[in-house]
Amino acid sequence: MTEPLPQGAVIGILGGGQLGRMLSVAAARLGFKTCIFEPSGDCPASHVANYHFRAEYDDTQALRRFAEAVDVVTYEFENIPTAALDTIEALRLVHPGRAALAASQDRLAEKRFLQGLGLQTAPFAEVTDRPSLDLALEAVGLPAILKTARLGYDGKGQARLDSPADAEAALDAMGGAAAVLEGFVKFEREVSVIAARGADGAVAAFDPGENLHEAGILRRTIVPARLSPGQRSDAVLIAARILNALDYIGVLGVELFVTPAGLIVNEIAPRVHNSGHWTQNACAVDQFEQHVRAVAGWPLGDGRRFADVEMTNLIGEDVAGLPDLARAPDTALHLYGKAEARPGRKMGHANRILRRPGA
Amino acid sequence: MTEPLPQGAVIGILGGGQLGRMLSVAAARLGFKTCIFEPSGDCPASHVANYHFRAEYDDTQALRRFAEAVDVVTYEFENIPTAALDTIEALRLVHPGRAALAASQDRLAEKRFLQGLGLQTAPFAEVTDRPSLDLALEAVGLPAILKTARLGYDGKGQARLDSPADAEAALDAMGGAAAVLEGFVKFEREVSVIAARGADGAVAAFDPGENLHEAGILRRTIVPARLSPGQRSDAVLIAARILNALDYIGVLGVELFVTPAGLIVNEIAPRVHNSGHWTQNACAVDQFEQHVRAVAGWPLGDGRRFADVEMTNLIGEDVAGLPDLARAPDTALHLYGKAEARPGRKMGHANRILRRPGA
Repeated sequence: MTEPLPQGAVIGILGGGQLGRMLSVAAARLGFKTCIFEPSGDCPASHVANYHFRAEYDDTQALRRFAEAVDVVTYEFENIPTAALDTIEALRLVHPGRAALAASQDRLAEKRFLQGLGLQTAPFAEVTDRPSLDLALEAVGLPAILKTARLGYDGKGQARLDSPADAEAALDAMGGAAAVLEGFVKFEREVSVIAARGADGAVAAFDPGENLHEAGILRRTIVPARLSPGQRSDAVLIAARILNALDYIGVLGVELFVTPAGLIVNEIAPRVHNSGHWTQNACAVDQFEQHVRAVAGWPLGDGRRFADVEMTNLIGEDVAGLPDLARAPDTALHLYGKAEARPGRKMGHANRILRRPGA
Repeated sequence: MTEPLPQGAVIGILGGGQLGRMLSVAAARLGFKTCIFEPSGDCPASHVANYHFRAEYDDTQALRRFAEAVDVVTYEFENIPTAALDTIEALRLVHPGRAALAASQDRLAEKRFLQGLGLQTAPFAEVTDRPSLDLALEAVGLPAILKTARLGYDGKGQARLDSPADAEAALDAMGGAAAVLEGFVKFEREVSVIAARGADGAVAAFDPGENLHEAGILRRTIVPARLSPGQRSDAVLIAARILNALDYIGVLGVELFVTPAGLIVNEIAPRVHNSGHWTQNACAVDQFEQHVRAVAGWPLGDGRRFADVEMTNLIGEDVAGLPDLARAPDTALHLYGKAEARPGRKMGHANRILRRPGA
């Protein structure tokens, strides 16, 4: 893309969940239309997008018609089938690009990419069979987690090893797929940086937030994170280094462990990120709009934080308390329009603005 | 309505312009779906609403199907044909109700209603023919403006009188319609209060903003307005009195002239209002969400202002500067997705957050 997209241009989004929903709203705010591609009906993004291609990711005809109907393509999840990307890329630009997807669709490729940039990761080793697992256990130590290299949802395709006796069962849980053994990192806290890179190469980062998980699901992000000025600057520089190395266009989420030995990269996500939802109520331009701006070839916006904020995910039955939850002071609700509140399902989030003296 | 609307309920909106668009987004944020009724295609609200009934306001069948498809009905403009309202009201609740529409669809009824509440208005008199115009001129004085009593768009159906010699032409401009002669008010500034009343009778007002017009169109709203504490409190009390008198549910815009003799009500609008767009970037809950909450039977939200802000309308060719306009610091853009930038057409607005020391 050489020219920024004009008013009325159509942004194609792969995936119709809450991230696609909030991307659609941000795109509309900039005068763009949106077209989502998503197999399931009545999905969160379909409520606010102009168009919905309801088809499977192996439906080449539908993918082609989708690509032809839009001006540029982005996505809300990283596990997009390679063949689908090939079909779309033959017709339209996809941002962020293949390098970012390659580095995040495969845990092993991701860790090698990060190490290649001189960044710290958790100890890891490739596992393809029992002999390589035994070698990996020697290198990484115990306890450790064996994860399939591909596929990304937390808690799926994972097995914890506390002793060598767990090896066989863990390997079985991988179902023969290539895997990676990861060691545990002793960390003080987990923070994340949401950063963006524009089509012009400009880089901007939101203030790092501090993440609290419950049962493997992000529960809360508190901003600002408790970091020293040096750590804060390191965190942003790490994100910038990744963005530049990938010649990235769009928003990237980087999860970092804070340790006495410095910041360790846990994971990167080539998309808007749950831990960046706080930006909706504490910045002039939020992560969703920043992503749309980059993808549309627009200049990045002003993402400086003007208030402290705490984001809380509303999970499963948390929404049973609505509309009473809506009475909370200083609180902005963001609900995803999901019909059914299943356990562990992200139903929405609440941003609580923490006022400061003088503000 | 006795019960608050549940997640997934459908809010019907009459009108598909930018106000309907921003109402739709606010409704989605609370987990509701939206259905707009609007004769024109590709209208701003259609880009973000779930459903669009594209039909004329005299299409009784379409109005009936629209009403049956939604759980409650609201609107983004006050000049809704009475017959259309009758059709819809037979099937669904409409908020704000008929009393509010009656008081705002007719300038004469509006001024009489306000006077009945003990509020100050500009001097006015009813005009139906030449003799009543002559009497009105005696009562109101010159200069004055003759306006048709019904219909609302500023600058249409209006004629200015600077001398008695203008009377005949002014009367001709009314085309035989009932009219009202309004005197001019010498004012220091114009402010507006955006206030809301919930289904439970709770009232909340946003901080008054100060309005600057150019060529009869709102150009800028600056918040806070330059008001003494007493004037600020008077402004809010006036809005509350109007809301309660109308047993109102939803958001109301009240334009006030600030004069040495106190606050004079210029106009009321039974809907979200251009001068309240600043709330999107300076409050946890903005005017659009506050309206949706009221209409849905939800509690009103926290509309306290956490920053000073300046809203600027982007009119006609103002958008030619996009995307460079998007570089402005501290600035949130809100574009309406209108294809053509005609002179005088509201294309979007920009909210500039004015940081404060310590914030």
